[in-house]
Amino acid sequence: MNNTEYDVVIIGGGPGGLSAALYSARARLKTLVVEEKRKTGGQCLTTSELENYPGIIKDSGPALMDKFTEHAKHFGAEFIQGHAQSLTLSENGLQKTVQLKEGRELKAKSVIIATGTRPRVLGIPGEKEFAGRGVSYCATCDADFYTDLDVVVVGSGNTAVEESVFLTRYVNSLTMVVIHDEGHLDADRIAREQAYANEKITFLWNSTVTAIIGDELVEAVEVKNVKTGACSRLATNGVFMFVGTVPKPTGCCR
Amino acid sequence: MNNTEYDVVIIGGGPGGLSAALYSARARLKTLVVEEKRKTGGQCLTTSELENYPGIIKDSGPALMDKFTEHAKHFGAEFIQGHAQSLTLSENGLQKTVQLKEGRELKAKSVIIATGTRPRVLGIPGEKEFAGRGVSYCATCDADFYTDLDVVVVGSGNTAVEESVFLTRYVNSLTMVVIHDEGHLDADRIAREQAYANEKITFLWNSTVTAIIGDELVEAVEVKNVKTGACSRLATNGVFMFVGTVPKPTGCCR
Repeated sequence: MNNTEYDVVIIGGGPGGLSAALYSARARLKTLVVEEKRKTGGQCLTTSELENYPGIIKDSGPALMDKFTEHAKHFGAEFIQGHAQSLTLSENGLQKTVQLKEGRELKAKSVIIATGTRPRVLGIPGEKEFAGRGVSYCATCDADFYTDLDVVVVGSGNTAVEESVFLTRYVNSLTMVVIHDEGHLDADRIAREQAYANEKITFLWNSTVTAIIGDELVEAVEVKNVKTGACSRLATNGVFMFVGTVPKPTGCCR
Repeated sequence: MNNTEYDVVIIGGGPGGLSAALYSARARLKTLVVEEKRKTGGQCLTTSELENYPGIIKDSGPALMDKFTEHAKHFGAEFIQGHAQSLTLSENGLQKTVQLKEGRELKAKSVIIATGTRPRVLGIPGEKEFAGRGVSYCATCDADFYTDLDVVVVGSGNTAVEESVFLTRYVNSLTMVVIHDEGHLDADRIAREQAYANEKITFLWNSTVTAIIGDELVEAVEVKNVKTGACSRLATNGVFMFVGTVPKPTGCCR
């Protein structure tokens, strides 16, 4: 049990939490970062090549996150591994207590929740195994790696449709797998029109992706027609999932 | 005369414009950055030590800006030196024309104005000469460099008062030079109370700084009492100016 009171406790050690820690510690505030995982860096840790952080042409996600962490530590930020479970306020609201799953309590004047978001996953076979090796949730991050290749996009909302149009600047061909009836996309008219007019985009209506197949890299997806129940296989080099994002739950919200 | 139409023309080559250029060029949009000065980097070019860009513990402003510029060029962004003077839209609004002072016209589908802001200056003798060598407009950036030294703050608004309280975590002593009568600060009550309660802060009321004096570094300021007209000299290691910021005018707004 540690009775230190921190000026700032930051829940979450991704790029957001680490940047907050740097600024807080450099402002000479006693700062603690609480990260669930053994390594700080959040979603960036799953990015093997990162080329859109201004000033750093190419680096790996984990290497960049090591630099963020070292930077915050350089100015005195402290780090612990732990799982924040609840947040309570003193009667006058000035003192905050963060309770960790592990039993420890942290006292703070301010708490920053930087737990981020995560892409919604389908939870199908192969999805987890091929994440970062053919399964992507971010076109801005990964489009470049699919230059002249064939990809599948899952989803039919604005993000799915806009990101598909964006991806066609890179890829050879793109198949949108859409669960709805032919002609129905959950996107704005301007986005729909751009997608329909794009020669690189093909639509598979009334369909869902039920498995991702490959060896080292993705080679195909299994597609199911939700009307007929028929299953087929579609060769592809990559699958982009755009089925929404969800705030990453902290313990307190679960 | 060049009749190329760009997808995106970015006016301003500071960190904002350079980041926009990186994302725009990496999205395979034909991108042009127009910068007035011979070197890109904006206000960052005047920062000799920069230690709060996450992931880069210490670098010079110009060196980091070289990396930003190289990064945008790496993905194909083009650069020209020029002074944007006016922006006109075609009848249907889709084509934009940026007219440069030098006579050249640039056609673009989209224009990003990233001309930034600049701190308001007093325009007093010594202010320009000592910028970055004892005259600062940013406590977050520079406080650390004044550890255990004596500083003067000019201004009386929320920024001036809050930044002064922040600076006391570093400096030995701080004198706020305030043009108003004793007890009058243009800041929120909570900020005022914190400043009055802070033992490191002294106030010089009815006063303005009329000159900054030094050799290599700042050594003193000349202070004038606006009621009596009396001039005096106050020894100091640095002067922080918090008298507001103004959007940096583009040619079109002048």
